[in-house]
Amino acid sequence: MTDRRETPSAEDSLIARYFRRLATDPGAFGLGDDAAILKASGDDLVITTDAIVEGVHFLPDDPPDTIARKALRVNLSDLAAKGAVPAGFVLTLALRDANDAWLAPFARGLGEDAGLFGCPLLGGDTVSTPGPLMISITAFGRVPAGRMVHRSGAKPGDRVVVTGTIGDATLGLDILKNGAVAAALANDTAAREMLVERYRVPQPRSALAIAVRDHAHAAMDVSDGLAGDLAKLCAASGVSAVIDAPSIPLSAAAATLLARGIVGIEAIVSGGDDYEILCAISENRSEAFVQAARLAGVAVTSIGTVIAGPSIPRFLDGMGREIVLPRLSYSHF
Amino acid sequence: MTDRRETPSAEDSLIARYFRRLATDPGAFGLGDDAAILKASGDDLVITTDAIVEGVHFLPDDPPDTIARKALRVNLSDLAAKGAVPAGFVLTLALRDANDAWLAPFARGLGEDAGLFGCPLLGGDTVSTPGPLMISITAFGRVPAGRMVHRSGAKPGDRVVVTGTIGDATLGLDILKNGAVAAALANDTAAREMLVERYRVPQPRSALAIAVRDHAHAAMDVSDGLAGDLAKLCAASGVSAVIDAPSIPLSAAAATLLARGIVGIEAIVSGGDDYEILCAISENRSEAFVQAARLAGVAVTSIGTVIAGPSIPRFLDGMGREIVLPRLSYSHF
Repeated sequence: MTDRRETPSAEDSLIARYFRRLATDPGAFGLGDDAAILKASGDDLVITTDAIVEGVHFLPDDPPDTIARKALRVNLSDLAAKGAVPAGFVLTLALRDANDAWLAPFARGLGEDAGLFGCPLLGGDTVSTPGPLMISITAFGRVPAGRMVHRSGAKPGDRVVVTGTIGDATLGLDILKNGAVAAALANDTAAREMLVERYRVPQPRSALAIAVRDHAHAAMDVSDGLAGDLAKLCAASGVSAVIDAPSIPLSAAAATLLARGIVGIEAIVSGGDDYEILCAISENRSEAFVQAARLAGVAVTSIGTVIAGPSIPRFLDGMGREIVLPRLSYSHF
Repeated sequence: MTDRRETPSAEDSLIARYFRRLATDPGAFGLGDDAAILKASGDDLVITTDAIVEGVHFLPDDPPDTIARKALRVNLSDLAAKGAVPAGFVLTLALRDANDAWLAPFARGLGEDAGLFGCPLLGGDTVSTPGPLMISITAFGRVPAGRMVHRSGAKPGDRVVVTGTIGDATLGLDILKNGAVAAALANDTAAREMLVERYRVPQPRSALAIAVRDHAHAAMDVSDGLAGDLAKLCAASGVSAVIDAPSIPLSAAAATLLARGIVGIEAIVSGGDDYEILCAISENRSEAFVQAARLAGVAVTSIGTVIAGPSIPRFLDGMGREIVLPRLSYSHF
């Protein structure tokens, strides 16, 4: 991303107008060079990359500021789950045209979140596309050398813990698509808005990153559905797990929809876009972790136990019967 | 990018099948985690990001392996111009479908170049799109602390130096679009193939990175056209330049087309996709730089001089007359 007063191409002015003030880090060189710098430090650099595509990860008429926030936050969510503190990000923006009414709120939302999470824009690329909008972000975080939290590392006996609530985002997407949830909540504007907001603007658990680093054997963020992501964590760790489905933390709206039979628990645990942290905490660290989470202001809930064995994690209902999951998570292909 | 045998979603198997063997760096964790690590070191990390879009930066029927090479090489070109040694890259791949006949050669070309340039795949994201293919790469390089070569730093009296030859890629694109160049070279298959190859597979001047770091006051890669990119370098440095157009290094094919009047010099200096290094070298470093370039096996040519002043760099013909440039470079919007 570059801009020179002598050669004000439309692309350059776009960048100057909207994005330069987001480049607050000295290593971004005001977006005026071909590359950015992350200064040498004693820390390992954690790198994560996630793209969102119009019609797939967000809807064409989602507000531009929420699209920007989601693009950044899905990456911040990964950093938090790895125990990393944000250091900055680069942005690739594929646009059909340079539309002021879209770009202004997009850049504003992105800038607000960059400030809020201490993750400045370091550079990027803007390209034109005749296709759907796409925003690809690569984000960087720092951890003390060798301290990144992996998917592997969960041990039999560990508690399976999740942050926040599960399933809200997939219910919010159903509302935006005018599905059964929209009809069921026709008279409850507040619940509809809350669920839609959970789909559009994830809450990365950055405040919990250091507690995860200090206490978790293994962690990842829940982006493709709790069941599928837990299966991935268990596979990477060479373990399995048993989950007590009634313990899975739900919002009041989700709990009501479940109780009314509008959605089943299988949709909640296989829906995507939660962006909560899933982690394995040893019994003897559990209390310290809960304490740290309380200080960080992040709700955490123990939902089950890691067990030995190679099988897919089982979800049990209140009677101890296994819940059949037709699919574990969202897949792009 | 993840894959677990217990949850073989189509996306996961795609990654396992094609990309895992490219993840040769220990910090990539075999693409089996949510993030990668670049280990702490005393070096600054140089970060660059460039995306290529089907129909914009490559053509739908370009061979998949050349598309992969171009996607990586445009980023390697930036690293080289900044004096950085490649450390790795992350990949975002937006695909319409998971097509074996396309993905196999794409991954093979990418893997070959990753090996050739010592730049391993660290991670990535694969998403589906109904639109054009898009490949976004963020690449990382290392420089000793504080030693990145900037666009700014050129000083009056410096020589303006470029690597390789200029204009071949834009002529190659004209051939692929069946333009005047295709007609003019109808009987010269070798020249047509050379020019097309220059468009499809840039040659990043990685071998010159350390010489650039050791000797250049300022540098950038020529991606949007020599004239426009030189204007950017001059603006960033607060200087101007005078270029002797007949000194601009041309391939035999480009020189012939120019001599025959098939293309003008203005098309050659404003066409994009050269991916050569443009740099400013002080007079007293010039000989050492040429020597280092010879050792690196990279052709370098002095094409003009940096001068004081804020004006756009001037290109002079063999008679010393200024060449009028209708546009300086390619713009996406």
